[in-house]
Amino acid sequence: MKEFELINRYFKGRGITRRDVNLGIGDDCALVTVPQNCQLAVTTDTLVSGVHFFDDISPRALGHRALAVNLSDLAAMGAEPTWVSVGLTLPNISQQWIEEFTEGMHEIAEYFNVQIIGGDTTQGPLTITICAKGTVPEGKALRRGGAKVGDWVFVTGTLGDAGLAIESRKQGLTIEPEHLKYINNRFDYPTPRVAAGQVLRGLASSAIDVSDGLLADLEHILDMSQVSASINIENIPTSDAMRSSLSFEEQLPYILSYGDDYELLFTVSDDNKSMLDLKLRQYGVEASCIGQIKSGEGQIELLHHGEKFNFEQQGFEHFAKEQV
Amino acid sequence: MKEFELINRYFKGRGITRRDVNLGIGDDCALVTVPQNCQLAVTTDTLVSGVHFFDDISPRALGHRALAVNLSDLAAMGAEPTWVSVGLTLPNISQQWIEEFTEGMHEIAEYFNVQIIGGDTTQGPLTITICAKGTVPEGKALRRGGAKVGDWVFVTGTLGDAGLAIESRKQGLTIEPEHLKYINNRFDYPTPRVAAGQVLRGLASSAIDVSDGLLADLEHILDMSQVSASINIENIPTSDAMRSSLSFEEQLPYILSYGDDYELLFTVSDDNKSMLDLKLRQYGVEASCIGQIKSGEGQIELLHHGEKFNFEQQGFEHFAKEQV
Repeated sequence: MKEFELINRYFKGRGITRRDVNLGIGDDCALVTVPQNCQLAVTTDTLVSGVHFFDDISPRALGHRALAVNLSDLAAMGAEPTWVSVGLTLPNISQQWIEEFTEGMHEIAEYFNVQIIGGDTTQGPLTITICAKGTVPEGKALRRGGAKVGDWVFVTGTLGDAGLAIESRKQGLTIEPEHLKYINNRFDYPTPRVAAGQVLRGLASSAIDVSDGLLADLEHILDMSQVSASINIENIPTSDAMRSSLSFEEQLPYILSYGDDYELLFTVSDDNKSMLDLKLRQYGVEASCIGQIKSGEGQIELLHHGEKFNFEQQGFEHFAKEQV
Repeated sequence: MKEFELINRYFKGRGITRRDVNLGIGDDCALVTVPQNCQLAVTTDTLVSGVHFFDDISPRALGHRALAVNLSDLAAMGAEPTWVSVGLTLPNISQQWIEEFTEGMHEIAEYFNVQIIGGDTTQGPLTITICAKGTVPEGKALRRGGAKVGDWVFVTGTLGDAGLAIESRKQGLTIEPEHLKYINNRFDYPTPRVAAGQVLRGLASSAIDVSDGLLADLEHILDMSQVSASINIENIPTSDAMRSSLSFEEQLPYILSYGDDYELLFTVSDDNKSMLDLKLRQYGVEASCIGQIKSGEGQIELLHHGEKFNFEQQGFEHFAKEQV
């Protein structure tokens, strides 16, 4: 299939049409209008076969996932996702595969009212690079660098499910079918916390999405904010699937170090905490208080029912094992 | 080297800093401000090793090229390039390679006053996907679909040099050293016609950049504009290197079908032609009139000194040889 045919069949005229898209797929560039008094938020994430997903991932899940991880970054800024560009490198072309892949991508795009405004389709090893754009009212974006001593540390949803899905495939862990289905779904079809991010505007002092693991991502907040934190590990939210499958001790690597859950980790001042609780309930956003910001320079103290707890951190670093 | 180290060393704090970038590399998203009364132009291009460039390409040339092909799309819209996001997938990490690659990228970014605002660095087969953003005054963007019967067809610079560089490497053509140096430079360090694109705003009726070959790219204009064209092949501009190396007949595949020159192909009404000539001279933009738009549905008539001329077209199609 020729590149133009592929784009025409699977992208052009598919999905939603936003009023702020002045020119979509089919010219040298797309043209869009950013609302007045809004900033443009831009993020890029690449998924590479064998690095970020299993070769046997369903194409529909991959299409969903590739977009979801980008929308998650927009969510972490409190931005409203609007437009995405899709760089798609494919090793060989099965119509069935592309149909399912683009279906997965269009589904999540439609759900979040995002329009695919362009991209590039090339031949080569399976790689997907998406550049997602969103808008956020001027000065209202959530950054990593605003956490203050005394702020409370929160996380949405539950942690560790995606990691458990990965390891259950690698190690063949014994997990009940209903739980296995749940965690596989959490890994294959991650939900970017877009509504949560927008609720947090003007309330959270800092935010990040948990893509590299709780401790690794918390470190980013601490580094940028020049503070430390203590985390009460018994308060880290876990799913039924997690609690039914592993002992508390066994859960720790998953909830502390595994990424790919795409929950939001954020901090909120004591003054804003009750307003936040109210807003979260109002919008149906689940979030748990898991610790507090302390003075210091990037240290994380883990507590278990008030007692110090030792844990060796290992975040997900693409180049960690490489020699320079 | 860890991903964060790589980004910190080669991207963060390197290159220019634009005042309209509110938040650059280092958070979940970048934040930028689009000027009032401007539209945002967005384009994405992917370069894959073995498909879009030779494996032995100098990393500096590759860094330049990856950005240049994107800026060329912005140029073809008459947009001012502003910000880019870089998705970089690397098979293995030599500091020397990354240093030279990013140097090539920063050089052209600085030349065009473009800021690298983010990206993603992953491990895998060498692939570069850049999403380039630019701004264009509302309603002033150059599109492919505006060519009218009677408009004149122009192209900037010279055509075929990049194609000649490719074939000289593949076939070992005999080309004089100075000419070889010139055409290799044209392929390795293409110049996006950014100033030309901005000069054309309000004057050209349509525009596109020549990335797939003159005939293939002209076809895009004709299809979108629902017109035909006649091209006087003796008027297609060629370089000294081209004319010294090949006979006129030999030149034809290069100037008609080879892409990668990244010149601008555009149309202008008879009414605007003298103003265009004036402006082009004023800004030092070289452009040649090569034909005229005719009524019809996408046909290209080639003329050689007024006589009909037959030529079999072959554009550069990434998936052309693939079975569906």
